[in-house]
Amino acid sequence: MAKFDMKEIKIVDVQVQDIRFPTSLQAQGSDAMHKDPDYSCAYVSIITSQKDLIGYGLTFTLGRGTEIVCVAVEALSFLFKDQRLHNIYSNFGQFWDRVTNESQLRWLGPSKGVTHLAVAALMNALWDLWAKIEEKPLWRLLVDMSPEQLVSTMDFRYISDVLTKEEALEILKQQRENDIETKIERMKTRGYPAYTTATGWIGYSDDKVRELCAKYLTLGFTAFKIKVGINLEDDKRRCKLMRDMIGQDNLLMVDSNQRWDVEEAIRWMQGLAEFNIYWIEEPTSPDDILGHRAISEALEPLGIKVASGEVCCNKVMFKQFLASEAIQVAQIDSCRLGSINEILPVYLMAYKLKVPVCPHAGGVGLSEMVQHLQLFDYICVSQTLHHRLIEFVDQETTHFVHPIRIENAHYIAPTESGYSTELKKDSIEEFKYPNGNWYKQMK
Amino acid sequence: MAKFDMKEIKIVDVQVQDIRFPTSLQAQGSDAMHKDPDYSCAYVSIITSQKDLIGYGLTFTLGRGTEIVCVAVEALSFLFKDQRLHNIYSNFGQFWDRVTNESQLRWLGPSKGVTHLAVAALMNALWDLWAKIEEKPLWRLLVDMSPEQLVSTMDFRYISDVLTKEEALEILKQQRENDIETKIERMKTRGYPAYTTATGWIGYSDDKVRELCAKYLTLGFTAFKIKVGINLEDDKRRCKLMRDMIGQDNLLMVDSNQRWDVEEAIRWMQGLAEFNIYWIEEPTSPDDILGHRAISEALEPLGIKVASGEVCCNKVMFKQFLASEAIQVAQIDSCRLGSINEILPVYLMAYKLKVPVCPHAGGVGLSEMVQHLQLFDYICVSQTLHHRLIEFVDQETTHFVHPIRIENAHYIAPTESGYSTELKKDSIEEFKYPNGNWYKQMK
Repeated sequence: MAKFDMKEIKIVDVQVQDIRFPTSLQAQGSDAMHKDPDYSCAYVSIITSQKDLIGYGLTFTLGRGTEIVCVAVEALSFLFKDQRLHNIYSNFGQFWDRVTNESQLRWLGPSKGVTHLAVAALMNALWDLWAKIEEKPLWRLLVDMSPEQLVSTMDFRYISDVLTKEEALEILKQQRENDIETKIERMKTRGYPAYTTATGWIGYSDDKVRELCAKYLTLGFTAFKIKVGINLEDDKRRCKLMRDMIGQDNLLMVDSNQRWDVEEAIRWMQGLAEFNIYWIEEPTSPDDILGHRAISEALEPLGIKVASGEVCCNKVMFKQFLASEAIQVAQIDSCRLGSINEILPVYLMAYKLKVPVCPHAGGVGLSEMVQHLQLFDYICVSQTLHHRLIEFVDQETTHFVHPIRIENAHYIAPTESGYSTELKKDSIEEFKYPNGNWYKQMK
Repeated sequence: MAKFDMKEIKIVDVQVQDIRFPTSLQAQGSDAMHKDPDYSCAYVSIITSQKDLIGYGLTFTLGRGTEIVCVAVEALSFLFKDQRLHNIYSNFGQFWDRVTNESQLRWLGPSKGVTHLAVAALMNALWDLWAKIEEKPLWRLLVDMSPEQLVSTMDFRYISDVLTKEEALEILKQQRENDIETKIERMKTRGYPAYTTATGWIGYSDDKVRELCAKYLTLGFTAFKIKVGINLEDDKRRCKLMRDMIGQDNLLMVDSNQRWDVEEAIRWMQGLAEFNIYWIEEPTSPDDILGHRAISEALEPLGIKVASGEVCCNKVMFKQFLASEAIQVAQIDSCRLGSINEILPVYLMAYKLKVPVCPHAGGVGLSEMVQHLQLFDYICVSQTLHHRLIEFVDQETTHFVHPIRIENAHYIAPTESGYSTELKKDSIEEFKYPNGNWYKQMK
């Protein structure tokens, strides 16, 4: 039994901080569309009436504009303040609907852009809080919830033509009958397989790419991603360099971060096909479902899959990407979708439509969060590791109180209570913007 | 010749104000998803080095959250400050791309939600400024621009699979060869036909609906829209009431403001088909292209068109709605799309794909703006009024320095320089939030 009584506990305050890590100084995270990201986040603390019981949540940003998300969190916070936790968690899907469809604020989205990023940060904090109340890591909270409870956290508005509440319940019940204990044990000991993006940021020199390939091969990685999309000849050289380093048996993925138009994407990838590319990620606009479908059809004979999702703004967009075979790899983002309430229906639609989920990670806290979700998918939904990998980049993990643990290129199941979203106090003091110590010293 | 030299003039400041009209007090603007809107706007003033030369632009909002858009305008303003106007307008499409793809801020969209609303407000102000420099109403500025100039304001990224720059140029050149003078004259004298939404907000009583139908019939209107979507029996009663009032020959449209799931939308509209509905507007999520297509296919045998677009966030989404026959009426919004730079390509795609544009109006300033755009479409693009109407609601027009002029249910071509976006100083003082006179008196 949990030591907290949710009927008694209220939310007394919602605080938000603008935290920016100056990553652009080393070209970390650079790609064809984002040349100088400063990996950042809007960091939410949900303060409760119970002493020391705080939920932490965040949404990932790239520096400038984080303050806009913070103001959006403040605008939404009236829906959270003074709420009793029991009233939220006992019908979490309804609460999610209330937050995302607030009658005046929904015009600013709905369910997209700044306001939805703010919803993600807030709801992530509520999930962290819930897991802490139950004194479990988030993945374990989800695994231990009954199918009925899981479904009560979801909202099926606008997706019932592809997945109804009844179907969701049926899937979860059915999978529960399989052996889940062995899967839990496997995640605790061997962990969930990862691929690395750390080798090929677009701002890196060839020598740096070589050095990093060698490093990650030694660490046991068998799947590698490189950024492409600015110059085809450069990309050919870089892909050849990667293949030379990693050999023919390891997986090589490329990522153009939305750089191309539809026909350009097809031509470009035809030019890179000789390097045996496993997937092309974000070939064009993240909103172009029909464009992704056209690219998928053209690249299928070349054996290249199309991956997208880190900028897919909501479950209605994912529904269409999945149902129309526009993507063959679904890359959910824990800070872009409106937290787990919206991510779970996407996992269930992906399962129903037979599309593997390989979540977006890296950034700030994304790896910490998505490991919980992907573990849940493995244990209770898809129940397979086939064609499934979690992205890995080692940036910014040291700022977290409970950073990811990678062993032999696998994410080892977290053991600490919560959603692994809490930042170290020292990191906050150093990098809060604009008055953290690091920024004061820069002046 | 214009009296201003754009090579000399610089932008010296960008100011933004949060203006909120307390419309929720009369249930004006209420619908199935937005029960209590306070029609509002983020109001931008672009101050130039030329005394008294100021561009005004805005984006429409519903009250709460307008402050978020204002902060987004401030975050984007560094891209505008100190720019010479010549550098902006001589390659306006490239400037648009730079603003919408700013390398750190684009993560918060891209091209959607709060940041894109802010882009709309800023770019609307730049268009107002340009028309003022040329001392023409905006529609006339567009009509007088060469096809090459028009195309230079657009950005074709992500839409070239449906419309290339060369095709856009070809359409504009071809249509220029037809008689445009007669069309200009017609717009100045008879004007552009309108339909009214003022009759059927969801919060209105049956008596009020009856009274307003009578009023708008007297004013010469022949097309009427009513809000639906909460209760089918209520909707049947209200549609019957409307039909009884307006007769069988006038057009009746219904609008559910995104209330339904796909299958629910089909069933509901089957239930209302007996009232001879011209279009159903926003039957489901504004992001659901494939859903709209399914609804369109199901309703086509009933003679009901599907209309959407006021919440369609960018040209990539419009491209798909248009190209997949998901909608039969495209309702562009002058404050949701990233201003005229993004709206012109949508008009051209709609023309190419034979879908009429009937713009969203009402709100704050939407009517004032879209009249210019629709006039340009009539004179230089589609060159027809067939199946085309501009929405009309008389709210908030009195706050504008140059409000719309409606005669015999037609929008009469504006004659004053600019984009008709300037608010009266008194209205600003009264309704600026939270310190306007109206709000001080409420305290």
